[in-house]
Amino acid sequence: MGGTSRTYAFLGPEGTFTEAALLQVPDAAQAVRVPASNVNAGLDKVRDGSADAAMVPIENSVEGGVTATLDAIATGQELRIIREVLVPISFVLVARPGVRLEDVRRVSTHGHAWAQCRLWMDRNIPDAEYVPGSSTAASALGLLDGNCHYDAAICAPLVAREHPGLSVLAENIGDNPGAVTRFILVSRPGPLPERTGADKTTVVVPLPEDRPGALMEILDQFASRGVNLSRIESRPTGQYLGHYFFSIDADGHAGEARVADALAGLHRISPRTRFLGSYARADRQATLVPAHTSDEAFTAARTWVRSILAAESTAGESGSGASPKA
Amino acid sequence: MGGTSRTYAFLGPEGTFTEAALLQVPDAAQAVRVPASNVNAGLDKVRDGSADAAMVPIENSVEGGVTATLDAIATGQELRIIREVLVPISFVLVARPGVRLEDVRRVSTHGHAWAQCRLWMDRNIPDAEYVPGSSTAASALGLLDGNCHYDAAICAPLVAREHPGLSVLAENIGDNPGAVTRFILVSRPGPLPERTGADKTTVVVPLPEDRPGALMEILDQFASRGVNLSRIESRPTGQYLGHYFFSIDADGHAGEARVADALAGLHRISPRTRFLGSYARADRQATLVPAHTSDEAFTAARTWVRSILAAESTAGESGSGASPKA
Amino acid sequence: MGGTSRTYAFLGPEGTFTEAALLQVPDAAQAVRVPASNVNAGLDKVRDGSADAAMVPIENSVEGGVTATLDAIATGQELRIIREVLVPISFVLVARPGVRLEDVRRVSTHGHAWAQCRLWMDRNIPDAEYVPGSSTAASALGLLDGNCHYDAAICAPLVAREHPGLSVLAENIGDNPGAVTRFILVSRPGPLPERTGADKTTVVVPLPEDRPGALMEILDQFASRGVNLSRIESRPTGQYLGHYFFSIDADGHAGEARVADALAGLHRISPRTRFLGSYARADRQATLVPAHTSDEAFTAARTWVRSILAAESTAGESGSGASPKA
Amino acid sequence: MGGTSRTYAFLGPEGTFTEAALLQVPDAAQAVRVPASNVNAGLDKVRDGSADAAMVPIENSVEGGVTATLDAIATGQELRIIREVLVPISFVLVARPGVRLEDVRRVSTHGHAWAQCRLWMDRNIPDAEYVPGSSTAASALGLLDGNCHYDAAICAPLVAREHPGLSVLAENIGDNPGAVTRFILVSRPGPLPERTGADKTTVVVPLPEDRPGALMEILDQFASRGVNLSRIESRPTGQYLGHYFFSIDADGHAGEARVADALAGLHRISPRTRFLGSYARADRQATLVPAHTSDEAFTAARTWVRSILAAESTAGESGSGASPKA
Repeated sequence: MGGTSRTYAFLGPEGTFTEAALLQVPDAAQAVRVPASNVNAGLDKVRDGSADAAMVPIENSVEGGVTATLDAIATGQELRIIREVLVPISFVLVARPGVRLEDVRRVSTHGHAWAQCRLWMDRNIPDAEYVPGSSTAASALGLLDGNCHYDAAICAPLVAREHPGLSVLAENIGDNPGAVTRFILVSRPGPLPERTGADKTTVVVPLPEDRPGALMEILDQFASRGVNLSRIESRPTGQYLGHYFFSIDADGHAGEARVADALAGLHRISPRTRFLGSYARADRQATLVPAHTSDEAFTAARTWVRSILAAESTAGESGSGASPKA
Repeated sequence: MGGTSRTYAFLGPEGTFTEAALLQVPDAAQAVRVPASNVNAGLDKVRDGSADAAMVPIENSVEGGVTATLDAIATGQELRIIREVLVPISFVLVARPGVRLEDVRRVSTHGHAWAQCRLWMDRNIPDAEYVPGSSTAASALGLLDGNCHYDAAICAPLVAREHPGLSVLAENIGDNPGAVTRFILVSRPGPLPERTGADKTTVVVPLPEDRPGALMEILDQFASRGVNLSRIESRPTGQYLGHYFFSIDADGHAGEARVADALAGLHRISPRTRFLGSYARADRQATLVPAHTSDEAFTAARTWVRSILAAESTAGESGSGASPKA
Repeated sequence: MGGTSRTYAFLGPEGTFTEAALLQVPDAAQAVRVPASNVNAGLDKVRDGSADAAMVPIENSVEGGVTATLDAIATGQELRIIREVLVPISFVLVARPGVRLEDVRRVSTHGHAWAQCRLWMDRNIPDAEYVPGSSTAASALGLLDGNCHYDAAICAPLVAREHPGLSVLAENIGDNPGAVTRFILVSRPGPLPERTGADKTTVVVPLPEDRPGALMEILDQFASRGVNLSRIESRPTGQYLGHYFFSIDADGHAGEARVADALAGLHRISPRTRFLGSYARADRQATLVPAHTSDEAFTAARTWVRSILAAESTAGESGSGASPKA
Repeated sequence: MGGTSRTYAFLGPEGTFTEAALLQVPDAAQAVRVPASNVNAGLDKVRDGSADAAMVPIENSVEGGVTATLDAIATGQELRIIREVLVPISFVLVARPGVRLEDVRRVSTHGHAWAQCRLWMDRNIPDAEYVPGSSTAASALGLLDGNCHYDAAICAPLVAREHPGLSVLAENIGDNPGAVTRFILVSRPGPLPERTGADKTTVVVPLPEDRPGALMEILDQFASRGVNLSRIESRPTGQYLGHYFFSIDADGHAGEARVADALAGLHRISPRTRFLGSYARADRQATLVPAHTSDEAFTAARTWVRSILAAESTAGESGSGASPKA
């Protein structure tokens, strides 16, 4: 990183939806962009300092959580999410120039993409055989290879635009027109992004014990402070069947007292809780904060408790304390 | 209070169970002891400085909460409970010398005492008429008055012992041999009594709103921190039917992090919550503290959250953070 | 009960607020009305069949629960509350004709009434001595007795109106102009009063164990079914300090599925739970029922579960079951 | 299905771990076994009647839930899980005879298998390139094909045993020696498998609304009845980001009152809840049932509520009802 510009890793190869997500980061177009062959490899570039940050997918509105990412950020050297990016997912079917739709016998793409275009495939080329690919872009670029053993690929519009050797046979072939994938930009721990009033906080919480209510206790740390959750996923710890950790997105920023208090509560219940960052929501939707969980309410409560413990005589003050009896 | 000895008010007159409770306080025998005609009068002596502390009853194992006390300490200038005393309640029937049981037609005592001796009365002098008295001692001492309009009184053994003019017709006439009354010693706000590991904390919490679950939110402030409750009573605020405050005894001392945290939670939900003190349990029964609500757990959690907010890079530390995935 | 008209017991003597409450019952004016010297005596008349029902006070907006009633209906042979009546509480000061306010030295009344007129007394006859009475009416009627040892009495307007021998020295002397007492009409178990859409259900629930959260489990039986509570009081069981039962009023009628389900839940947690009746609210305020706790929701849920257990093949039905995945 | 023997579909091809799971079913060895190219295809054979049941994977101790299965059973025509099977996952590396480990350049397998052997690969053939396969068996069998473009495959021991044309280069190459995959046998709705005292119940519950506590309300339906959860996973409904359903395994059988009651509660909160079956646990671990949630407790509670509603006079019965007051 000897130069002045920043270096961003991303889940490659070039032309993936992940690169499209990265390009939404203000300075990414001018930055060095390094593709990584898988999520772990991308995050390792951040961990070893060869990249300033990495863009990886975390959640798809159709396919769900990206388990490779959920697991990779939950373990190893700590990282922080500093930004989220939403990318509408739209698929195109590409082939070498001259190939027509009716010629297509074998189609390659990533498994998630295949799952999201199944209805279109069934209606249009029902007899096409599926050839698994490691990414949508890899499948598309494979077509440019001389001895490719499939005829077409499903990929992002970006990769088709960037490679004139690919011809688009069909656009918008995804079954769910509103499909969106959420990406996160991950860096080493450092100062938290500033509060914007529309933030998210991500944590990883190992389930402490297998007893009725353990998960409820965890959720209660949020609910009892009026903190809404926007995502919760269980992942196996890998130790044995039924041993989980939870990956959770909560509304709010760790700089808010109610979120900080919830984090402290999680740490008490499950001391191996991992904080993964507070960052601005991509949709800019402001968080509603119940009055009794505002920073002011927390400050007032703390001040009150402190005055009790400080044992300052309040006997002479008029109006001190409650008078519940009229 | 110009002298060197302390002044204690108590719910009088002399000879009540309350004076018996006061005499359990180490320096009370040598102190100035001032009877008060009612609970409010006793507490007012503390508030205006004419007494250092006041002993008043708060709860009876048979009759329940002493509402006069519950209401009096919940309102007005703030006070603090600094000690609790348990007194086994045992009743005697007294009369003027020469009066026999079969002569008794009218019996006076305080309403609570009457309620606690009803079975004995029904079995032994079923036709006796009840004459309400303002206290057990007042009823007993009234017998020494020339034109007393009743024949016998139910009172504490103490008053009979102190007044030779009273003859004991029967002992242990209470229906419930294990009856106990709990008394509290109340002072002006000052340094809290020290933690003993077997403490109680008393609070008054106005119910914030009439909605399903408001009371549960209050109780959850204790339960979610593993704090057990030993007493809970609802009292009307007097404003309208159905508007309550709750008087609550919780196990633990405000100097414990989990109790302090629960207090802060109560204050957020119900800002007019009133703290009434932390003090040693009379029964010396140590409080069991779940590991995840120990002071250590709170300190560790706070330190962890602070390190997140301080944004100290922990990237280089080995072993930092959780690794839920094996 | 040999005649055709009904017999009502009430907490006497005549002229008490309780009789005023009884007179609000449609057929009470024509019925036989029998005063009882205390709450237990009144209820026993119902239990032994010498009265059809008894009117007793249960709750005062200023003084709180009437513990004698709370305890009496919680034990012994089962009874049912079939109606509630609200009576605004207004006090008058009465004396024998010719006695002026400035002549009054000693004032008698029931302890609750004395507590509710204290401010007026302090402002107008601060030196008056208090003489306890067993009821407001008893104190007032005592004045008509030749050798009465007090000068005035605080009582209900009703008793003054009914006895010309009493002269009213002052009206509306209660400190809280909005004071209200709630009375209940109690009968032997029988068909429940019909649902009106604005009902209450009263239960007595012994706290099963002294553990954190036991009370919350009880409350959760109501909250989880959207049933609001309008009153909750703890009472000692009398066995030992800290052993309670709870007297609870909940919105709704046992004929409603959500209330019946909550009752079943209470019975599971605390098998000695006692049902004290479902009856129309005196204030006619309709109960709001969340959609997912309506009778329809319960019926639909039960039907669904039954169909699962009956193992009827639903495979062929279109639209059966959920399709959470779009 | 014209013959006498049953027909089982399974996620093929032959030699997968899924076939190994199927062979654990008592009559499967003698039955017709039909491989399906993907989970949906296997389930569709059950739905259209061409198979009696289908065996598909649902959860892996390392990789987590099998999303294709979770989604496929949550939608479409209803199905029932009638059995679960656990299969220890052990991987072998196979190649054509004569190929040595040091010759291996490109390795094919299913993505999940690749993820579970990464450490072994890094240590032994770190430069091997990954070639995605649609299943472990497909990758292995591909080696038998003349123009195969990879050198080795990771697969189950079963497939290596069944195909002499495959030579085993290494055994037990999985990174987690305790890895287990859970499979489910799925049929059309019919009579539930009998209760064994060690059962599981699987449901799919769409999250009713995006509000704090909605998930807690769902979990509370289980917790408040002492029903433990052994698996919970969120899956996107596909409608929009943040819209989930939950796939849940609970301990117990729908024939148990507490489970049936929890199901009814779920249906009220989320009427599109889908029941996926009650079946014996593979590990035979008996379920602990708290006394207050036993069938007896439910029956007693229901009987009690019914007697209240039936308005049978219990006045004369001795011992009826509670006597919380000693």
